[in-house]
Amino acid sequence: MRTIAIDAMGGENAPEAIVQAVLQAKTELKETKFILFGDQAKIKKLVGSDTDQIEIVGTTEVINDEDEPVKAIRTKKDSSLVVAAQYVKQGKADALLSLGNSGSILASGIFIIGRIKGIARPGFMPTLPVKNSDDGFNMIDVGANAKTKPEYILNWAKMAAYYAEKVRGIRNPRVALLNNGSESDKGDDVHQEAYQLLLDSELNFIGNIEGNELLDGKADVVATDGFTGNAVLKNIEGTSSVLIHLLKDNLLNSGFLVKIGALLIKNALKGLVSKFDVDKYGGAVLLGLDAPVVKTHGRSDQRAVYFTIKQVDKILKENIIDQFRAEFATDK
Amino acid sequence: MRTIAIDAMGGENAPEAIVQAVLQAKTELKETKFILFGDQAKIKKLVGSDTDQIEIVGTTEVINDEDEPVKAIRTKKDSSLVVAAQYVKQGKADALLSLGNSGSILASGIFIIGRIKGIARPGFMPTLPVKNSDDGFNMIDVGANAKTKPEYILNWAKMAAYYAEKVRGIRNPRVALLNNGSESDKGDDVHQEAYQLLLDSELNFIGNIEGNELLDGKADVVATDGFTGNAVLKNIEGTSSVLIHLLKDNLLNSGFLVKIGALLIKNALKGLVSKFDVDKYGGAVLLGLDAPVVKTHGRSDQRAVYFTIKQVDKILKENIIDQFRAEFATDK
Repeated sequence: MRTIAIDAMGGENAPEAIVQAVLQAKTELKETKFILFGDQAKIKKLVGSDTDQIEIVGTTEVINDEDEPVKAIRTKKDSSLVVAAQYVKQGKADALLSLGNSGSILASGIFIIGRIKGIARPGFMPTLPVKNSDDGFNMIDVGANAKTKPEYILNWAKMAAYYAEKVRGIRNPRVALLNNGSESDKGDDVHQEAYQLLLDSELNFIGNIEGNELLDGKADVVATDGFTGNAVLKNIEGTSSVLIHLLKDNLLNSGFLVKIGALLIKNALKGLVSKFDVDKYGGAVLLGLDAPVVKTHGRSDQRAVYFTIKQVDKILKENIIDQFRAEFATDK
Repeated sequence: MRTIAIDAMGGENAPEAIVQAVLQAKTELKETKFILFGDQAKIKKLVGSDTDQIEIVGTTEVINDEDEPVKAIRTKKDSSLVVAAQYVKQGKADALLSLGNSGSILASGIFIIGRIKGIARPGFMPTLPVKNSDDGFNMIDVGANAKTKPEYILNWAKMAAYYAEKVRGIRNPRVALLNNGSESDKGDDVHQEAYQLLLDSELNFIGNIEGNELLDGKADVVATDGFTGNAVLKNIEGTSSVLIHLLKDNLLNSGFLVKIGALLIKNALKGLVSKFDVDKYGGAVLLGLDAPVVKTHGRSDQRAVYFTIKQVDKILKENIIDQFRAEFATDK
């Protein structure tokens, strides 16, 4: 039996979307138990009589976006996130899922659940869309760390490659390093050294990738420092959203015939938007912790949370944390 | 009289598009002289009898994308780029424009034309589009430097703000720092220190900006380290291009009615593409050199080169290099 601890109070649509997603997922995941943390009365009402595989743990506090993460997890001891993380730490749950803010999830992960031996810093890893395939690619780190060392990048790449293979089913995933040029001597010291570490590793390292190539599907895993990764991830979101906004704007402010045209292409547009709907790829995994910790967007709806639950379940099923423990313990 | 040295052999459409752009621009810029460097016979033929304001300097070599930049400018002494840069160095021209590769232009700028006293490192600065205005914003540095110090970022921001004010006509431009969060303590050491330097400066510093906000028009100048700036700039290009490609693809592979729709919205789509056509904003300026050095995309057509010529002329007219000399000489 796998047990997932779910912070039911994080995000804009909590707890409704989260509880609905659990109810949807549990009919498929018969081997999995869900512990929901949050407002006991509200959650109980949403769950109704369908209580199989579900446990509710009442908590009285919620960590908000305004809270300073490290302080919040130390002072809001009875928050849904902190109690859920404690359950994982104590072995009462195997994985943590939250829609809360990244900083607090990161702090809970590091200070409550703890790191895998041999991993100095965990990295946030989303799965992002690519142009001509439904596979997408994993990018790590997208912001758990502002400062990065070359060996962090190597370890993130190793974990992400293993994830891509086991969870996403990509055989021998192609690993690239985000850099400012294709040549091996590109980048600052950190990226030059990371390049050499990746080259000397067992990974299927295909060299550097540049910012304009990310969505082309050239790599299954893109390793990057958390500062650049954060800027680039947010920029993909921002640029996509501005373009789609401008397109809609252009269509709406045009003449009658164009509006007819817009109606006719509506579905094609929806296809495009869904391609860039990061939600369907599940959440961002915080790799390097002693249990799977997955964060999805605060604005996630039932469908997005449902996909993320399936993702967490798959991570547990593939037992990737045990693999990391073995890999990095012998590494040192 | 202002004199612009133009490398007529760089880019995919050389020398035709470049010569045509000069012929177009010179009818408007009566006070400006153009020196074209490259294949004398070819250029002469393209110029024809319309030789007012134009001088041709024959050169026999061309620097390619395959050339290692620093080596190329040292060995290809009779290349159009190197000879054009020499003319600027010797005071026979006031500014340099090239469609060649960034590395060689950077090397020519630093090693032939030289830096302004007080500026340790020049930065590449394009003007990029924003959502709800035609003004765009300047981002610096987008890749002249892989390694960055906080004081470089301050100096780039100062130069870019002056450029935004004088060349683009933005009063009291809003300057932001690209960072991994909005709070003042965000980022690595370099960005934390850069934040303080910007805060203590005379600039209209509005704080940090994140990757998803760049195209929102919140800032007129975005200062960043060259590594992150490079990844983000390329990512804006890549994400836009993938989205537009996917949209076209979705429309073309759809049914008959959608195709009719696509025809009807064609112009609205063109408006969108032109909004994200970086060309109309001119080229990227290498700020911090002893003369204006401007690079435009290798794929630039006549129209893009024409806009860049007007941009270079405006930079000369506003005399911004003299201003920088005064500013940074007293700075030290």
